[in-house]
Amino acid sequence: MDTYYTKDISLPWRRAVVSVDQFKKPDIDEIFALADRLSVGRTMPLTGKSIINLFYEPSTRTSSSFYAAMTRLGGSVIPINEVNYSSVTKGETLEDTIRTLESFTDALVLRHYDEDATERAVSVASIPIINAGNGAGEHPTQALLDLYTISKERDGLNGLNVTLMGDLKHGRTVHSLTKLLRMYDVKINLVSPPELSLPRFYLHKNDTEHRELGEVIADTDILYVTRVQKERFFDELEIDFSYSVTRSDMDLAKTNLVLMHPLPRVGEIPIELDSDPRSAYFRQVKYGLHVRMALLVALIGRD
Amino acid sequence: MDTYYTKDISLPWRRAVVSVDQFKKPDIDEIFALADRLSVGRTMPLTGKSIINLFYEPSTRTSSSFYAAMTRLGGSVIPINEVNYSSVTKGETLEDTIRTLESFTDALVLRHYDEDATERAVSVASIPIINAGNGAGEHPTQALLDLYTISKERDGLNGLNVTLMGDLKHGRTVHSLTKLLRMYDVKINLVSPPELSLPRFYLHKNDTEHRELGEVIADTDILYVTRVQKERFFDELEIDFSYSVTRSDMDLAKTNLVLMHPLPRVGEIPIELDSDPRSAYFRQVKYGLHVRMALLVALIGRD
Amino acid sequence: MDTYYTKDISLPWRRAVVSVDQFKKPDIDEIFALADRLSVGRTMPLTGKSIINLFYEPSTRTSSSFYAAMTRLGGSVIPINEVNYSSVTKGETLEDTIRTLESFTDALVLRHYDEDATERAVSVASIPIINAGNGAGEHPTQALLDLYTISKERDGLNGLNVTLMGDLKHGRTVHSLTKLLRMYDVKINLVSPPELSLPRFYLHKNDTEHRELGEVIADTDILYVTRVQKERFFDELEIDFSYSVTRSDMDLAKTNLVLMHPLPRVGEIPIELDSDPRSAYFRQVKYGLHVRMALLVALIGRD
Repeated sequence: MDTYYTKDISLPWRRAVVSVDQFKKPDIDEIFALADRLSVGRTMPLTGKSIINLFYEPSTRTSSSFYAAMTRLGGSVIPINEVNYSSVTKGETLEDTIRTLESFTDALVLRHYDEDATERAVSVASIPIINAGNGAGEHPTQALLDLYTISKERDGLNGLNVTLMGDLKHGRTVHSLTKLLRMYDVKINLVSPPELSLPRFYLHKNDTEHRELGEVIADTDILYVTRVQKERFFDELEIDFSYSVTRSDMDLAKTNLVLMHPLPRVGEIPIELDSDPRSAYFRQVKYGLHVRMALLVALIGRD
Repeated sequence: MDTYYTKDISLPWRRAVVSVDQFKKPDIDEIFALADRLSVGRTMPLTGKSIINLFYEPSTRTSSSFYAAMTRLGGSVIPINEVNYSSVTKGETLEDTIRTLESFTDALVLRHYDEDATERAVSVASIPIINAGNGAGEHPTQALLDLYTISKERDGLNGLNVTLMGDLKHGRTVHSLTKLLRMYDVKINLVSPPELSLPRFYLHKNDTEHRELGEVIADTDILYVTRVQKERFFDELEIDFSYSVTRSDMDLAKTNLVLMHPLPRVGEIPIELDSDPRSAYFRQVKYGLHVRMALLVALIGRD
Repeated sequence: MDTYYTKDISLPWRRAVVSVDQFKKPDIDEIFALADRLSVGRTMPLTGKSIINLFYEPSTRTSSSFYAAMTRLGGSVIPINEVNYSSVTKGETLEDTIRTLESFTDALVLRHYDEDATERAVSVASIPIINAGNGAGEHPTQALLDLYTISKERDGLNGLNVTLMGDLKHGRTVHSLTKLLRMYDVKINLVSPPELSLPRFYLHKNDTEHRELGEVIADTDILYVTRVQKERFFDELEIDFSYSVTRSDMDLAKTNLVLMHPLPRVGEIPIELDSDPRSAYFRQVKYGLHVRMALLVALIGRD
């Protein structure tokens, strides 16, 4: 088998988007510029092209985002959501499924519960694969859209004070985002209970760890809040964990704070904060659409 | 939260279609004229536009009708049918789901089992919402297509003798249709067992109530038959209810009778009547497509 | 009811594709020429047209193939995959479902677990129906794509030595393919355990039956391997049946052998053979796309 995916990510992101590690600063500049351009006007550069949304795990948010991105660009989407009940699982390997489906389409957006699924798919595919979440692994397009949101909301990525709060241990979104932020001049504050702190692997010597948002809120430019993923880590439900942002926190925060959340939220940010202009989480969804449009055009836009 | 939906339906239908109460005669004239126009020729005024079909309850008939209407007009549909098993229900509120999905699309077609779902969706949405059935509440596009069917089959809406037969207590279709019919010079006959009669709220002093179709069949211009919705009202299965139209009924009826049914039928109209030219229930489906095309163009056709 | 489907298949295939028995040699020539033409370039002759994929049984492979075929041609697909959980089964007959859905679309691709489903659908439909598998019955588009694969891989259909191996008793694919092959100058070898041999109905006097692939591999031009359909014939699992192609078999085979499989495979062909240029099973998927594009254009391409 001709495997061109390697752990050290020498794989070009235009061939397959599997990890944030594949992206250098100029790549990001290029994607964000393309996202800017595609967000205005309605050109349809992908007319006649298609993608398959192959989702082994349900994720309406992510699949709809790619679906919308593709159709806005004039392309079609073949949705395969019910994989576990379908014929592709009549004992068939993921590799065979990929090699079958690649005949039908120009790129494949894959969400799978196994961490090695993306790697296996990429190893056999002759069309671009986009990792839309591989178990406890990565979700690179989410990290890119988070970074794009910051850059759009603050008109740049340097000199910012970023606070990450919540379940920093398990959130693949947070892990990937920290990697991207390291490329810029950014100070990172971490707020979590000790049981859910950021794994050492992702820590940087300048990071500071905190137990209370109050310790850092006044200096924070970007406050990124995450959800406890109970469906993934049910055995940790014993942790009495309820970090949430309050109106009082917001009163202490900068007037140009950017409050972000990957959604869905389950209490981390109360509804009453939705009307605060600093709440950016729904704008974040829109930015995500534009980043995914940019990725699709970059990957399959040329013939 | 900026709520612009109110119980007295001051909400313009071009902003959200939630209830038949929003429609005045000139609105209906306009929609029907548009439906006439769109039913011929294949213009594609919604190219580059999309809708999301957000169905919390399965309804292949209604979702397919909107799907077909949108694609005929050149637009795309993002289908979200499996909501209960999907990520949007990771504890997320309907309001958050709506605010997330509205970033992806131009309008949202919502079917939900809760009666207050439409109202909640409209209260947060910045794009048009179309109510495709909210529990025991309303199904306004069905009522509009029923009215359109009558107007097409009889070339007008005044001076008609309309007989409604079946479960008149629970059928939201019947409730909404009676409201629309009241705007015209129409005599309504009601045929049902006492346990399933039309709620007082919808009754008009000129209506007549009957137990047998035979009492009114000879004078009837429009015979609208409905199904007992056993899946909604299973506790009433004890009622021995089997009103159905027979060949003998049809022999007594006018030669230009219009026989309608919202479908699916489960015995109310025998298959042998399908070849009777007065059986309009499959043409009704087609008219529904045209009405929904008209609504989509009216709601999202302009930029 | 106006039934125009008859057992002796006088039904023209342009009106409904229900069985391979409908196709004569000139029909096949025409479809294959069209498939050739559509496989190059990206014309979009079905812009503004749609099909409904109505699948009562899951079949991601087949439904995706039709989905891709239709969108490549510029058309839209209305996917109805979850039929058993949906409103169309509120006690509704298949006939009523068909008559409802035909209002929405230009053709209907039907997969159903009942063998008489296609016939029933065709008996009421006024739009083309394509049989995408009816229980233990037929799967004509699979047989056509198998034949097309052979013709493309060997540049013609005459003078070939074709070996069919596996469960020849139950595989509808094999049954339909043998019928098509009979139209050409082809020698057929059958390799299976006695319990799973080809039914007498499909046998021809020149066919030879074998227990071992080794008996015929050296002379074989086309080796068609099938899967034991355990999900259909679970009561036969007692058969200790594990015919598979090995590297040694391939060493004995012709250098221009064509190795085919309808997929999914579950051990009949080991992964190590994927890199052998004679392995045609993934190319077969691609040929299938082109044949289905040709059928769609032939059935709904004209106004």
